[in-house]
Amino acid sequence: MNVAILFGGSSFEHEISIVSAITMKKVLKKSTLTYIFVSANREFYLVDTDKINSKLFSSGEYKKGKQLTLKQGGFFADGMFGSKAVDFDVALNLIHGRDGEDGKISSMMEFFSIPFISPRTEASVLSYNKLYTKFLAESLGVKTVRYEHLTKNGSREISMDFPVIIKPVRLGSSIGVSIVKEPSELDYALDVAFEFDADVIVEPFIEGVKEFNQAGTYTDSWELSIVEEPQKEEFLDFEKKYMDFSRDSQVLSADITDKLKTDLQEAFKKLYDPLFKGSIIRCDFFVVDNEVLLNEINPIPGSMANYLFPDFEGMVQRLAKHLPKEQNIKVDYTYIHSIQSAKGKA
Amino acid sequence: MNVAILFGGSSFEHEISIVSAITMKKVLKKSTLTYIFVSANREFYLVDTDKINSKLFSSGEYKKGKQLTLKQGGFFADGMFGSKAVDFDVALNLIHGRDGEDGKISSMMEFFSIPFISPRTEASVLSYNKLYTKFLAESLGVKTVRYEHLTKNGSREISMDFPVIIKPVRLGSSIGVSIVKEPSELDYALDVAFEFDADVIVEPFIEGVKEFNQAGTYTDSWELSIVEEPQKEEFLDFEKKYMDFSRDSQVLSADITDKLKTDLQEAFKKLYDPLFKGSIIRCDFFVVDNEVLLNEINPIPGSMANYLFPDFEGMVQRLAKHLPKEQNIKVDYTYIHSIQSAKGKA
Repeated sequence: MNVAILFGGSSFEHEISIVSAITMKKVLKKSTLTYIFVSANREFYLVDTDKINSKLFSSGEYKKGKQLTLKQGGFFADGMFGSKAVDFDVALNLIHGRDGEDGKISSMMEFFSIPFISPRTEASVLSYNKLYTKFLAESLGVKTVRYEHLTKNGSREISMDFPVIIKPVRLGSSIGVSIVKEPSELDYALDVAFEFDADVIVEPFIEGVKEFNQAGTYTDSWELSIVEEPQKEEFLDFEKKYMDFSRDSQVLSADITDKLKTDLQEAFKKLYDPLFKGSIIRCDFFVVDNEVLLNEINPIPGSMANYLFPDFEGMVQRLAKHLPKEQNIKVDYTYIHSIQSAKGKA
Repeated sequence: MNVAILFGGSSFEHEISIVSAITMKKVLKKSTLTYIFVSANREFYLVDTDKINSKLFSSGEYKKGKQLTLKQGGFFADGMFGSKAVDFDVALNLIHGRDGEDGKISSMMEFFSIPFISPRTEASVLSYNKLYTKFLAESLGVKTVRYEHLTKNGSREISMDFPVIIKPVRLGSSIGVSIVKEPSELDYALDVAFEFDADVIVEPFIEGVKEFNQAGTYTDSWELSIVEEPQKEEFLDFEKKYMDFSRDSQVLSADITDKLKTDLQEAFKKLYDPLFKGSIIRCDFFVVDNEVLLNEINPIPGSMANYLFPDFEGMVQRLAKHLPKEQNIKVDYTYIHSIQSAKGKA
């Protein structure tokens, strides 16, 4: 199978997406990989799979590669004998953050009829925005951490006790996020968060809370990952984040009861089906008093959380064969014909 | 001002979008219009403004026009001397239904840095999906008609009294919508609705409910339309819908109290700001026991509800000068440089 890796994008996570994309070479070993880079100013470039390394991008050398144009049916390169489609079976959207996770790439892939692995547009919008994720989870009967929503020009009063955690609603990673231990620190933390987003959510910061991650997809049946208990760090610094996005070997399953495992899996399935069909996502949960609470949905986890699956490559191939199909809409101009015959012309 | 009208699309409302687009010739009289047609199979064509009429599309003659390609900065036509951008100041998204209202067009306009008038991607997804519109309205303190959500493979039991109205969550116009007067008719109505969507909402059908529409936008200040009391029809048949989308002259303001007018305007503003900035939308309300309830948000009303505004063309021009700006993200490869210096190479 020939898998096109889409990566880069106009995103705070542009660089981490490059790391994630390069990692795929070690993960998708049996597949042919076709690398399509989305530059920071949103142009498409074909990148030679044999030569890919991070310096190619930081040096600007990628510009020597073929520039591609998105048209109906695929990415096209201009050549001596006209425009030719880049050959691949499925596109894997590995653009973290803006463009990749906010619905832009999925909108374009769908519009141009390119088969792709990634959340569709609705799923992207609902998971990229942490406030909308709350609405979604609540409507599906999955509990979340309680929260208050503040807006840039609105009141800054909150009613919950400190410490709290402040999060811009739309950014991935930990950009703009602060833990606020007492009221006097709140204003500054909100100033920081509002630099990045006009909407912020405030949640109680639960010291030492148990965290568990569940990843998965639906191919022709459920394919759920092992449950991971992520390392505790107040924040991931860049070095750790780099390790996370470049990880390519299995980690150990969390030591939890069967009951908790089932609860996590059931919560995952409720969130995933049917909205996230076509994607491999990771849901990050907290467990408080034996109750599973959704923390956030990671619509495109670093290198798609390959290290949590026993057969990631096989799963990608199966998923490529079970992608959701858009409804077929036939346009036959019946209405316009009927106006024309009624009016003589329209 | 040169306004590009985007119309057509892979949508059940493809034809009605053509009608809506042609109407703009009578509405935007002082502007230069550049017509860009999105064919049912999603290719772009430049259409001669002087020759535009509905037959051009039903006959397939539009294919003789220049085919366009979407690239960074605009729509491009290939010519003798290379590729040239089609000239315009702002694009007006007049694609009703799928593609135009579901976030695809807005995603592409944003990605390719084309200034455009239409809801942005988040606003599109939240208004195109009637269930998500409920979540949005509730979170903003705007009441809606109560509802139950049914899914294609789930239970078909409802707890509200008949008559009820059944709506697929994702379609514009009245496609797949039924009024169900008694329990024995429910199954058939759901079968019809599930033909179009895997999600359906059921609401009480309120015989003779008062309906009021409020349209508007925010330029450098609020520009709200008159309040319209739409004609009562159980459903709009095509002829009426055609009239609606081709309307180009002012209608009369509804005869309502100042209090109700203020309530409708306040509800509109809560829903619009800031999510819908950059667009001209219409919110359709019910009034029950003097209480304003959102029925639905029409993200791209037929010919943008021009007939409700005293100076539609001036408003479009003002809006074009006050479009929301995407956050500027600078990618400088700091992280990759730091990995490279730490590792020798990455």
